[in-house]
Amino acid sequence: LPKSYHYQNIKPAKYPVIYLLDAETNFDYYAGMVDLLSKQPYAEIPEMIIVGIKNTDRTRDLTTSKSLEKNSVNPNELQYKNSGGSKDFSQFIEDELKPFILSKYRIDQYSVLVGHSFGGLFAVDVLFQNTKNFNAYVIIDPSLWWNNEKPMKLINNFFENGKKLPEGTFVFLAQANNEGRSKKSIEEMTLNIKKFKNILSENHPQYFQHRFYQEDGHGTVIYPANFDALKYLFKGYRTNVKEFAKDPTILMDFYTAFSKKQHFQFKPSESYLNFIINYLKKNNLQESAEKVHEIKKSIYK
Amino acid sequence: LPKSYHYQNIKPAKYPVIYLLDAETNFDYYAGMVDLLSKQPYAEIPEMIIVGIKNTDRTRDLTTSKSLEKNSVNPNELQYKNSGGSKDFSQFIEDELKPFILSKYRIDQYSVLVGHSFGGLFAVDVLFQNTKNFNAYVIIDPSLWWNNEKPMKLINNFFENGKKLPEGTFVFLAQANNEGRSKKSIEEMTLNIKKFKNILSENHPQYFQHRFYQEDGHGTVIYPANFDALKYLFKGYRTNVKEFAKDPTILMDFYTAFSKKQHFQFKPSESYLNFIINYLKKNNLQESAEKVHEIKKSIYK
Repeated sequence: LPKSYHYQNIKPAKYPVIYLLDAETNFDYYAGMVDLLSKQPYAEIPEMIIVGIKNTDRTRDLTTSKSLEKNSVNPNELQYKNSGGSKDFSQFIEDELKPFILSKYRIDQYSVLVGHSFGGLFAVDVLFQNTKNFNAYVIIDPSLWWNNEKPMKLINNFFENGKKLPEGTFVFLAQANNEGRSKKSIEEMTLNIKKFKNILSENHPQYFQHRFYQEDGHGTVIYPANFDALKYLFKGYRTNVKEFAKDPTILMDFYTAFSKKQHFQFKPSESYLNFIINYLKKNNLQESAEKVHEIKKSIYK
Repeated sequence: LPKSYHYQNIKPAKYPVIYLLDAETNFDYYAGMVDLLSKQPYAEIPEMIIVGIKNTDRTRDLTTSKSLEKNSVNPNELQYKNSGGSKDFSQFIEDELKPFILSKYRIDQYSVLVGHSFGGLFAVDVLFQNTKNFNAYVIIDPSLWWNNEKPMKLINNFFENGKKLPEGTFVFLAQANNEGRSKKSIEEMTLNIKKFKNILSENHPQYFQHRFYQEDGHGTVIYPANFDALKYLFKGYRTNVKEFAKDPTILMDFYTAFSKKQHFQFKPSESYLNFIINYLKKNNLQESAEKVHEIKKSIYK
């Protein structure tokens, strides 16, 4: 939960939610990163609730079709037993997890899905099967090679059938440097990510960013990519208190413009407005402080 | 503490220590990052103990001389009251904190100091006043402008007097993009960092890396810089279990070479050796598994 979630000096606020896959690997640094980036007064992103989803059977839940690939050591066994359960897992998130979070926490209707590797494969599947389940998608080195590149067919069909991703659905795609790994890995992992990049660049350019990580392989790419992803998704969120001091009327214009870009209404947090008011008072800008106080009263009744 | 610190199936191990300044800002993401980077079997860095040092009076403890700069609003007041206490703070770390950590935890004699801004100023001061207090220094957007650039004089005098930093003392210097901040900030912050970079490039090139962060200002630079810093300090630490599988005798050669580079003896952790042994057994390389088992017995008696 955000640091301000239980603050007594502000009215109970609502927060956007990040659904983070593979939480057993990602939760600790990710939560610390969100704290850092959302820290007042120079927040780059809003404070958010992070829902870390740990795996119980990763291959079952995150893969999008049943693979019949044989085990390389014992060809009598399947390499990916139980694979292909992503539909059930997506339904679990929509029908069980989200309602549970809604009932238990003060959440805003803005949500982000974050997935890496098989988690990235899963996020791509949700993006194209249920385009409206999340407002933004962070897709890191996704396993688009899965099961003879079946995900690529889904993506291609989607656009070939004239469908479009919803306006305002931001997608961040990270690609690790997989040189030095096996040839198979480079070809299957990297080439499909490149194809995916080209498709989104063509069909969804306004809400899409791709990044290549020269210095990070499949494992460590999650750390820098998740940082860049949040900075991309909330680009323009950072405010300059000194500009508001000059002219507090631009404050709401700022949030209106940002909300329009995001296709979702964001507003200044009460604690940030308190910070601005204090800043103005300290600098003897009493009139401006009054104006911001009025804004605060109009939002937080 | 590292995840393996209390593992029951290995002998109690010793760990390098990171002393992290401004811990109230840095500890959470940093601890998660170290967990991520030190995760077996593809660890990029060793598991380490992180000692987060929170501030009680930041300006007093981290600044290296008494500044007489006037407060810009009220010229009857000093801008930095109580400044200039770094010597006491350094002594506290050496004489109280380090012995306390040693008495309470199983630590190896390898330590890193991490500082940002005033913390970077402090780390530079320790580096040149007490060169041997730490094995490596991570210095992020340091406030070398402090008190009419006094730290620059210290650095210049050091090298002009023919002194040298100890061999094997790694220094990572990060420089944020301070464009868009005040002119004073760019000139004082950035220009001095560039000078410092040039001095170390000339006088300590083998153990020095500088990085510029185009997309990060003074605040957020700590996140990517700390990641890059650890990857730099422990470059070459990552092992390839498949190579050891081919020829387990190269395992100790690998750690010997790495230790030589680091000027400190690093050895494979017992849990990593167990991982290799299991990997070899699973792949029916019984003879290699035996050899690694012998290595393990010779290190962990």
